[in-house]
Amino acid sequence: MAALLRGSRCLAGKCHNHVNAAQVSIRSMASKTQVGFIGLGNMGNPMAKNLMKHGYPVIASDVFPESCKELQELGAQILDSPADVADKADRIITMLPSSPNVIDVYTGPNGILKKVKKGSLLIDSSTIDPAVSKEMAVAAEKLGAVFMDAPVSGGVGAATSGKLTFMVGGLEEEFNAAKELLSCMGANVVYCGQVGTGQAAKICNNMLLAIGMIGTAETMNLGIRLGLDPKLLAKILNMSSGRCWSSDTYNPVPGVMEGVPSANNYQGGFGTTLMAKDLGLAQNTATNTKTPVPLGSLAHQIYRMMCARGYASKDFSSVFQFLREEEDKCG
Amino acid sequence: MAALLRGSRCLAGKCHNHVNAAQVSIRSMASKTQVGFIGLGNMGNPMAKNLMKHGYPVIASDVFPESCKELQELGAQILDSPADVADKADRIITMLPSSPNVIDVYTGPNGILKKVKKGSLLIDSSTIDPAVSKEMAVAAEKLGAVFMDAPVSGGVGAATSGKLTFMVGGLEEEFNAAKELLSCMGANVVYCGQVGTGQAAKICNNMLLAIGMIGTAETMNLGIRLGLDPKLLAKILNMSSGRCWSSDTYNPVPGVMEGVPSANNYQGGFGTTLMAKDLGLAQNTATNTKTPVPLGSLAHQIYRMMCARGYASKDFSSVFQFLREEEDKCG
Amino acid sequence: MAALLRGSRCLAGKCHNHVNAAQVSIRSMASKTQVGFIGLGNMGNPMAKNLMKHGYPVIASDVFPESCKELQELGAQILDSPADVADKADRIITMLPSSPNVIDVYTGPNGILKKVKKGSLLIDSSTIDPAVSKEMAVAAEKLGAVFMDAPVSGGVGAATSGKLTFMVGGLEEEFNAAKELLSCMGANVVYCGQVGTGQAAKICNNMLLAIGMIGTAETMNLGIRLGLDPKLLAKILNMSSGRCWSSDTYNPVPGVMEGVPSANNYQGGFGTTLMAKDLGLAQNTATNTKTPVPLGSLAHQIYRMMCARGYASKDFSSVFQFLREEEDKCG
Amino acid sequence: MAALLRGSRCLAGKCHNHVNAAQVSIRSMASKTQVGFIGLGNMGNPMAKNLMKHGYPVIASDVFPESCKELQELGAQILDSPADVADKADRIITMLPSSPNVIDVYTGPNGILKKVKKGSLLIDSSTIDPAVSKEMAVAAEKLGAVFMDAPVSGGVGAATSGKLTFMVGGLEEEFNAAKELLSCMGANVVYCGQVGTGQAAKICNNMLLAIGMIGTAETMNLGIRLGLDPKLLAKILNMSSGRCWSSDTYNPVPGVMEGVPSANNYQGGFGTTLMAKDLGLAQNTATNTKTPVPLGSLAHQIYRMMCARGYASKDFSSVFQFLREEEDKCG
Repeated sequence: MAALLRGSRCLAGKCHNHVNAAQVSIRSMASKTQVGFIGLGNMGNPMAKNLMKHGYPVIASDVFPESCKELQELGAQILDSPADVADKADRIITMLPSSPNVIDVYTGPNGILKKVKKGSLLIDSSTIDPAVSKEMAVAAEKLGAVFMDAPVSGGVGAATSGKLTFMVGGLEEEFNAAKELLSCMGANVVYCGQVGTGQAAKICNNMLLAIGMIGTAETMNLGIRLGLDPKLLAKILNMSSGRCWSSDTYNPVPGVMEGVPSANNYQGGFGTTLMAKDLGLAQNTATNTKTPVPLGSLAHQIYRMMCARGYASKDFSSVFQFLREEEDKCG
Repeated sequence: MAALLRGSRCLAGKCHNHVNAAQVSIRSMASKTQVGFIGLGNMGNPMAKNLMKHGYPVIASDVFPESCKELQELGAQILDSPADVADKADRIITMLPSSPNVIDVYTGPNGILKKVKKGSLLIDSSTIDPAVSKEMAVAAEKLGAVFMDAPVSGGVGAATSGKLTFMVGGLEEEFNAAKELLSCMGANVVYCGQVGTGQAAKICNNMLLAIGMIGTAETMNLGIRLGLDPKLLAKILNMSSGRCWSSDTYNPVPGVMEGVPSANNYQGGFGTTLMAKDLGLAQNTATNTKTPVPLGSLAHQIYRMMCARGYASKDFSSVFQFLREEEDKCG
Repeated sequence: MAALLRGSRCLAGKCHNHVNAAQVSIRSMASKTQVGFIGLGNMGNPMAKNLMKHGYPVIASDVFPESCKELQELGAQILDSPADVADKADRIITMLPSSPNVIDVYTGPNGILKKVKKGSLLIDSSTIDPAVSKEMAVAAEKLGAVFMDAPVSGGVGAATSGKLTFMVGGLEEEFNAAKELLSCMGANVVYCGQVGTGQAAKICNNMLLAIGMIGTAETMNLGIRLGLDPKLLAKILNMSSGRCWSSDTYNPVPGVMEGVPSANNYQGGFGTTLMAKDLGLAQNTATNTKTPVPLGSLAHQIYRMMCARGYASKDFSSVFQFLREEEDKCG
Repeated sequence: MAALLRGSRCLAGKCHNHVNAAQVSIRSMASKTQVGFIGLGNMGNPMAKNLMKHGYPVIASDVFPESCKELQELGAQILDSPADVADKADRIITMLPSSPNVIDVYTGPNGILKKVKKGSLLIDSSTIDPAVSKEMAVAAEKLGAVFMDAPVSGGVGAATSGKLTFMVGGLEEEFNAAKELLSCMGANVVYCGQVGTGQAAKICNNMLLAIGMIGTAETMNLGIRLGLDPKLLAKILNMSSGRCWSSDTYNPVPGVMEGVPSANNYQGGFGTTLMAKDLGLAQNTATNTKTPVPLGSLAHQIYRMMCARGYASKDFSSVFQFLREEEDKCG
C-alpha cells in the first residue's frame, strides 16, 4: 500500500517527462541492438526465441541455468544475473511468476536496477499486483530508466506462435518503443494507460472470466438436473442473454463442444492454480481500493478450494466437474 | 416438493400418450376456432392482440375487469372466470405473475380444470417453479387435457411486436399444436423437452444473465478505480475471454454504449424485482434438486438487497450504480 | 407456497378455537391411554421406548417392518399403516425424515387423515418446511383434529436418555396436552407460537449454528496460518467478542478440546448431510419470504459441496478439515 | 508481500537475541523514565493520559498540533516529529489509523527510525497488516531496536478507563518490559507469539465477530418473518447451539436487550467503517497466505456495501437494520 502511495505521488512529477524525451532519442537509434530477457520459463522461453527470429540479439538470464541451455544453443548470450544483463542491454523484458520475483529481479542485490543504464526501457510481462508495477516504475524512474507493465493473455501455444495479446501500461510516449519489441511476440499490443493499467486490464478480464466460467458451470449443471439436454441448453443460452465466452467458446460440459479442455478430461488450457493466483491479485487490488467485488471474491474462494481437490493442474473449466461430483456423490 | 414427486411419478405413466393421440386428431380440425386467454397484464394484453391479428377469436378473462376493456373493444369475448373460458374454448393460454396465481387459475374453485374439456390444450406462458408446472400437467392429464409450459424471453416491446421467444416444455406430439398459436406471438418457439423444461431453460438463462451482469458491473467498477477508461476496458473485455452479453450488448456503465438502459438512467429494460423473482425460482429449484449454485445464490441475495434501495423498478443493469455508489459515498 | 397461503388464511378463522375447546375436554380424560407413533428410525425408536417407560401403551407403524421388531418385543402393538394407527389412537406422534414423507404419512392413501378421529392430537417431530406444517394443520383442522409441529434439537444420545429439546408450534390451548407426552422424551419443551414456529425456531438455530461453525473453522485456520497456537487463539476468541458455541463448546480444531467430534476424527455428532438438509429448509423459507440471508445461503452451498467430498457422514465441524486440506494440498 | 518474506527471513536470525539481552538490562533500570507517544487521536489521547496517571513522563507528537494541547496542559512535552521523540525517549508507543501511517511514522523522513536509540522498545498499538508489523520489526532490528505489535480490543470507553485488552506479538524476552507500560492502559495484556501475532489475533477475532453479527442479524430477521417473537427467538438461540456473543451480549434487534447500540438507534459502539477496515486486513492476510475464508470475505463485502448506505458511522450491529430495510421496502 505504501508503495502504491509513493508510486502515485512520484509519477505525478513533471521532471520525468523531460528526462524521457531524452531517453527516446537515444533508444530510437538503437533498434536491432541487443535486448535483455530475464525469466526463461514455459512462457519466457518461446517469447525470447521469437525475439531472436526477428533478428534481435538476446542477452538472457534465469535463476535456473538449465532453462538457458536451449536459448544459448540458438546463439543467445547467457549472463549470471539481471544486473549483468542491465549492464549490457538498454532494453530488457522480464517474464516472472509473481510479485516477489519481480521485486527481487528489479530491486534485489543482483537486480536490474543495480546496473541499469540511464534511458533504459524495462518491460515486465509478468502478471503481478499493479501496486508493485507502480513501485518498480518509481524505482526505475529515480535512476533515469523507464518501466512499463505488459502482461499477456494467451498461453504457451500463443507464446510459441507469437500470437500473444499484450496489455501495456506506462508513459504513452514510450509505447511505440515497447510495441516495436512486443510485436515480435504478440498479435495484439494494446495501450491501456498509466503504469499498472496493463495489469489492471489483465486482472479485470480474468476476474470476469472466472465469474462467467463458474456461472456457466452452475447453470449447465442445474439445467441438466432439471431435465435439459446439455447441447440444447448451451444452444438456448448462446442465442439468449446468458451467452458468454465460457458458454459459447469454451463450454465446460463434456460433449457440448469439440477441441476444448472439457472434451479432453480438462487437460491443457488454463490451470486452476493460475486462475486462483490471478483472482488473488484481483482480490487484493479490490480490497486496497475499497471496491466491492462480491462475485469476484466468491469465485476466488471457489478456485482456492479446487486447488486442493486434485484440480490444481486441470483446466479452470473443470469447475463443472467439481460442482458436478458434489451432486453425484451427495447422499 | 410433494407436487414434484407426484408429478414425476404420474408423467412416467404410459396411458396418457394413448389419450393424447386421440386429442390431437380432435384439435387438428379446430384451427382458427376460439382461443382462451387468461391474464391480460402488460404482457398478456399485447399477446392476446397478436392472436386476434392472426384471425383467432379470443375469449378472455382477468381478475381485474378494467384490464379487459381494450380487448373487448377489439371484439374479444370477456367471461367472468377461467372456468367459464374452459367451458367455451379447448385451447387456452395463461400469462400470470407467479406460481400461486397459476395454481389458483388452474386448480382454484373457479379454475380452468373445473370445466376443462377432454383433449383441451392448456399453455402456460407464466414464469414459475417447474415443479408447479409438473403439478398442473398431472392435474390436467387426470382430466384428459394437455398442459404445456411455455415461458417467454423478451419484454413488453417484444410482446407487442410479436417477437417473443417461447421455451416450450411438454409432450413432443403436442408441440406443433402449441407452436401454431405461439408463432402468432413470437419469433422463436423452441422445444425444450418434458413438462417443466421450458421453465428450466428460462430460469437457467436468467440465472447466468444475472451472474454475468453483476460480474460485469464489479469488473468495470474495479477497472475504473484502477485507472482504466470504461470504453477501453469494455473494448478489451469484449475482444477477450471476459466477453459476455452484459459486457458487449447491454453494458451497465453509463457512456459505454448507446440505446441501453445504462444510457438512460436505467429506465425501461428488465426490472430488478423481476430478476429477483426469477433468481428466487432458480434458488428453489437448485435447493430442491441439491444442486450447488454458489454464484447464482449470491446473485439472488444481491438483487434482493437492491430491491429495497430504490432499485426495484430500475433496470437490473443498475447493479453497477448500486456497487458504484458504495465506493462514492464510502469514507 | 400455495399451501402457505391457504394455511395462513384458514388458521386465522375463529371457529376452530371453539372446536378445540371440546377436543381438550375429551382428551383430558384420556391420559395414559394408547399413543400412536409413526416412524421408528434412529430417533423415533428410542423416543417411543421412553413413552412406554412412562407407562403409555404405544401403537406403532413404520414403512420398514423390521424397524418395529424391537418395540414389538417390548409390548408395543404394530399396525400396517398410519391410517390404522389413527383408527385406534387419538394422540399420535410422527418422526419422519423429510417433508414428502410427512405429506405422505398424513395425507397419503393410507395416511393418518384417512381415519383420524375428531379431536385427535397429532404431533409431528420431524424437521420440515414450516409451510408444510401449516398445510398439514389446515388439513387436520378440516377433520376436527389438531396438528402441532414439535421438531427436536439433540441427537440419538439425547433421544435415548430422554433429554431432547422440543420446539413446539400450534394452538396455545393445546400446548399442555402436547407437553404431557413430549416431557416423557425431552428435558425442555418450549412453546414457540402458531403452527410452523417450532420448525422456524429449529431452522433459525441451525442456520446460525452453521454460520458460526464455518466462521470458527475459517478463523482458526487463518490464525494458525498466521502463526498463532490453536489453543491460545481459541482462548483469546472465547474471552472476546468472537466467542460462539462452535468456538467455546464444540471447537472444530483437533487438539483444542476433549470429548468433541474434532477430538475423534469427526466421528459421531451431527452429520454434514443433516446440516445440509436443514440449511436447504432455511434457504427455501428465506426465498419464499423474500428474506435476504447472504451468509446462510453461502453456508448452505459449502455444506452441499462437503457432502460430495467424503464428509457426508462426518460431523459438521469437519468443515475445518475441509478448508484445511485445501491449503495443505494447494500448490 | 516482499516485506513479509524479508521479515520472516531476518527474524529467524540468532544475533538479535544476543543484542536484546543487553537491551533488556539497560531498560530495566529505566523504569518511570520518559515514554514517547505518537498519535493522540480518540484512542491515543486517553491512553497517553493513563500513562501519565501512572507517573510516566510523556513526550508526545502528532501530525495535528491541536490534538496535543490537552496533553500539554497536563504536563506532557510535545515535539515536532516522531524522530525528535525517538531522540529523547527509548520507550515509544504508537497509536495510528492504518498501515501507511505506521510506515511513515517509523520509516518516513522524520520517522522514529531516523533517530532511534540502540535498545529502544517500540510498541505499535495500531491495527494494521501483520506483514507491515514484521517489516517494521526488521527495520528496527537492523538499528538494534525492538519492535512489538500490540493492537487493542475495546473502544474509547475502555481506553479512558484503562480497561483495554492488548494482544502482543514480538520477542518473548521483551514481553515483560512491554507489559509494564501496557498494564497502565489495559486490564488484559496477552502474549500471542512472534511479531505480527498480536495483529493476527485481533484480525481473527474481528473476522469471526463480523460473521457472527451478520449471521445473527440474518437469523433474527428470518425468524421474525416466520412469525417468531424476537425476544423468544433470542432466548431459544442463547440456550442452544446458535448462541454467540452477538446473540447473547450485543443483540442487533431493537427491543431484545437493554444498553446495547440496537437499543439506541445504533449510536456509539463499533463503527461500520472500522469493521470494514479490519475485514479488509483479514481479507488481505487470507489472500496472501492462500487461506480460504468464504464467509469472512462475504462479510467484508457486506460491510463495504453498508458504508455507502448511511451506515458508515452507525454501530456494526446495524446490519440488522440494513437487511431489515430490504424486506420492508421490497415490493
